[in-house]
Amino acid sequence: MDEETVDVSVAFDDIEELWAPKIAAELNGQHVKLARLEGTFDWHRHEEGDELFYVLDGELRIEFRDRPDATLTENQLRAVPAGVEHRPVAEEEVRVMLFEPAGTRNTGNVETEKTSEVERL
Amino acid sequence: MDEETVDVSVAFDDIEELWAPKIAAELNGQHVKLARLEGTFDWHRHEEGDELFYVLDGELRIEFRDRPDATLTENQLRAVPAGVEHRPVAEEEVRVMLFEPAGTRNTGNVETEKTSEVERL
Repeated sequence: MDEETVDVSVAFDDIEELWAPKIAAELNGQHVKLARLEGTFDWHRHEEGDELFYVLDGELRIEFRDRPDATLTENQLRAVPAGVEHRPVAEEEVRVMLFEPAGTRNTGNVETEKTSEVERL
Repeated sequence: MDEETVDVSVAFDDIEELWAPKIAAELNGQHVKLARLEGTFDWHRHEEGDELFYVLDGELRIEFRDRPDATLTENQLRAVPAGVEHRPVAEEEVRVMLFEPAGTRNTGNVETEKTSEVERL
């Protein structure tokens, strides 16, 4: 696991690509990731792991197939259970912190042009 | 696991006690907790689990027995590995988000007057 202090605000300076989460910390087999999102992501689900979204700046809508959408604004968080199909949508750029198992692929069960290798900050 | 949106800023209105983390979300056997800290905590370690501190507001010093202290300001995070003795110190009130395994006791391996039952928000 990591042992260094990460300044989240500064870390975003190194995140240029949209929809490409970067690893800020690893602990207990989980990753804390940071991502910039804008536009409409692809529908997907994570078969094995729950995923938490914490909005740092902006507004994020998480759309679901089988339940009402969730709209998160700054300082709001929401967990999406394993197996639940969802699609993040950001009308304008939003900055999020993610908490999910190490090894989680951003597009979950599908491979699309938005599928991204997960790199460290 | 939980499926509700939590507004972190609002949630702090329900946290009156210092050093008593409250559970904001549960996922993958981990808890996301919120806590208000002020003063000097007790030295302790968590034998089994790593623990992450993310400072939302204020300044937190994490003192260690065997390595340099870490001072975290707003939007900074730091993971403390399992087994590493540490002591959070806040000269003034600080608000933090914690990531750690479900079941983690705030005072880790020791029971003191600061040991607190962990409740849900």
